[in-house]
Amino acid sequence: MILEILCVGTELLLGEIVNTDGAFIAREAAALGFSSYHQTTVGDNPERLLEALRLALSRADIVVTTGGLGPTCDDITKNAAAEVFGKKLVFHDEVREDLEKFFSRVGRPMTENNLSQCLAPEGAEIFYNKWGTAPGLAVTGEIDGRSKRIILLPGPPSECEPMFEECVKPYLRALSPEVIRSLNLHLYGIGESSAEAILRPLMEESVNPTVAPYAGEFEVRIRVTAKAADEEEALSMCRAMADRVRATEAGAYVYAETGDPFSAKNAAAVTLLSEFGKRGLTFATAESLTAGMIGSLTADIPGSSSVYLGGIISYSNSVKRDVLGVPAAVLDSVGPVSEECAAAMAQGARRLTGADVAVSVTGIAGPGGAEPGKPVGTVWFGVATKNGTHTEMRLFGGKKDRAKIRRLTAAHAMMLAIRAAKEL
Amino acid sequence: MILEILCVGTELLLGEIVNTDGAFIAREAAALGFSSYHQTTVGDNPERLLEALRLALSRADIVVTTGGLGPTCDDITKNAAAEVFGKKLVFHDEVREDLEKFFSRVGRPMTENNLSQCLAPEGAEIFYNKWGTAPGLAVTGEIDGRSKRIILLPGPPSECEPMFEECVKPYLRALSPEVIRSLNLHLYGIGESSAEAILRPLMEESVNPTVAPYAGEFEVRIRVTAKAADEEEALSMCRAMADRVRATEAGAYVYAETGDPFSAKNAAAVTLLSEFGKRGLTFATAESLTAGMIGSLTADIPGSSSVYLGGIISYSNSVKRDVLGVPAAVLDSVGPVSEECAAAMAQGARRLTGADVAVSVTGIAGPGGAEPGKPVGTVWFGVATKNGTHTEMRLFGGKKDRAKIRRLTAAHAMMLAIRAAKEL
Repeated sequence: MILEILCVGTELLLGEIVNTDGAFIAREAAALGFSSYHQTTVGDNPERLLEALRLALSRADIVVTTGGLGPTCDDITKNAAAEVFGKKLVFHDEVREDLEKFFSRVGRPMTENNLSQCLAPEGAEIFYNKWGTAPGLAVTGEIDGRSKRIILLPGPPSECEPMFEECVKPYLRALSPEVIRSLNLHLYGIGESSAEAILRPLMEESVNPTVAPYAGEFEVRIRVTAKAADEEEALSMCRAMADRVRATEAGAYVYAETGDPFSAKNAAAVTLLSEFGKRGLTFATAESLTAGMIGSLTADIPGSSSVYLGGIISYSNSVKRDVLGVPAAVLDSVGPVSEECAAAMAQGARRLTGADVAVSVTGIAGPGGAEPGKPVGTVWFGVATKNGTHTEMRLFGGKKDRAKIRRLTAAHAMMLAIRAAKEL
Repeated sequence: MILEILCVGTELLLGEIVNTDGAFIAREAAALGFSSYHQTTVGDNPERLLEALRLALSRADIVVTTGGLGPTCDDITKNAAAEVFGKKLVFHDEVREDLEKFFSRVGRPMTENNLSQCLAPEGAEIFYNKWGTAPGLAVTGEIDGRSKRIILLPGPPSECEPMFEECVKPYLRALSPEVIRSLNLHLYGIGESSAEAILRPLMEESVNPTVAPYAGEFEVRIRVTAKAADEEEALSMCRAMADRVRATEAGAYVYAETGDPFSAKNAAAVTLLSEFGKRGLTFATAESLTAGMIGSLTADIPGSSSVYLGGIISYSNSVKRDVLGVPAAVLDSVGPVSEECAAAMAQGARRLTGADVAVSVTGIAGPGGAEPGKPVGTVWFGVATKNGTHTEMRLFGGKKDRAKIRRLTAAHAMMLAIRAAKEL
């Protein structure tokens, strides 16, 4: 079945906001087995919206719209959906009852505005909005004798995404004969072209599951996707293919396996907490250029408090010296971007917090700060454990900007921590 | 003049990546004075691309495409542009010379692949790609006797954005008779509906400049936009209108004024560094739930090292006690989420770093951790200066998740720091 996405909102055309709804729905729809060939964005203009909706319905079975719902934009998407299917807007009593309960509970009167929320095309399925105001809808109709569906979702991602998860996903699952499931293998320390070269035979040979490499900012993600009659079978096929990937040369670089989008996005932190947690180890940080980014990323994950104790942000040399105990002699001679300083910072963080593993980073994020022999992107890492202190240097070169150098530094620090935990 | 954006790439249709190119170009085009009514995304399919290009050219004067350039996708966008204008692809000697110089400099041979980069529609203007491989193009042609232009840009944002800034902006400026400039006033401590209510008379009265409110995550942004014959006049009109906004009740909530996208995105940090910097003050942090986010956001801004000394990430109670000196008696009685703990943390950070202003945060980010009388979202703030320690509590309620509570906490901490600097 063909699905098309139509995003409504002048703020999108003006580039005020980035269209994350479009990417979210596209990803979910692909995972559910729908093919998608077009995505369109129009503004809050009834005529152009109607035209775009007609065009989309001429080439797709299902059109998912975002935006244009609610009183502030005069419900233009709801009106367009009704018009394109030649349906009347009728009162949906169940929506009114739901609203009446809500208003009596908060002790406020219902207004005219709210009554219009109860109007929907005849026969529409209502998706109640627990995260905002305007309900979503699914409308079925006919265009030139062919059955078509329009799913209307609110624009704000904080409403669109959970409504899709809770209401639209089951709705679409019922329409789709097959199930698609994926898992990701995360590789660190190897480039995308090298990984692709190793996996090419597997990629070319395998039609279902498919194996696809994606270059992340600091990692390569190998996505294995299987299509089957049910979820269990699809996941089982994915795991079998993941084992085959791990059995290649690329397997040595796999540091994490994830299934859901949250874990995939935070694979480094999720893995760190998992490897530390299962060994009962604690973690601390001493950060200069990253200035707290490593700690913040670690704490993105609920439950991190059982592993992450905290750390020192030693952005200035004075804090390196006075809090972490980096000798003034080191700072005055080789300076803060040095092996000696990185080692002292890691040891200092370990001593102050009592953590099993303390990682330090000190380097030049740019744009200024380069010294002779130390260009922008030079970063020293320290890892202190009961067995001693490991140090290494990375040069994040090429077209790397300040923000990117800091992010690559944070990622590498987490990888070093993971390795240290495994060796303890 | 009407401009339309056409993004090419199957990875966009699959939701693999979010379409930031589209938002970027839309924002820039709007600022340059072009009207935009449609944005479309298609996959790497020559037929659908040609169809989409034709549709776009039927309703816009200029079509800007992203993606589909380069050998890996067989230059489908370049070929489609040539076909839609009925132009031949010809060799552009200047491109070949440029490539030959590049290859002799790196000591590598040019390949067949690279020669195809020298092909472009007759008469095309070449935009050299200093940030990647495939050059961009601008092609002029005729559709039904009307002059049309297609601007082709590479897909990766790290190439698309700088190429737009350096090559496309001047190209488009030459076509646009007017200049549009904006500035943003950032408000904190007032909701969007209240701000809108105060500014409605101004918004309704003013056609040029326009005044538009946007709800940010922790702030309200009032964007003032003026259209004029040149940049100086447009900016002058913006500033005069900004003064009128500041003169209303809403003016009391203005904490920053920004012009460029980077500053607008980082207004809190930019303002903090500015207010501290001009007074020669230094800043330190003691972070629990934010775990380094405040430090990291502050250090996003180049030059922050002259203001931000660093801080302590006291994610665990042990670090609060052992490093910051929060009394065990406090932790055992009222606990870490308390006025007493926040005060002690801020004082500890100030003592350890010697900073003029130290801000602390301690609270419950969720999803777990709630206690009787302290629901998820309860956060205590401390601000220590030579004049004493200020404390306050915020309850970030409603539908707030862990990530949002931490971000709102970081923002409020920065606002408290800014206020403290102004009072010193």
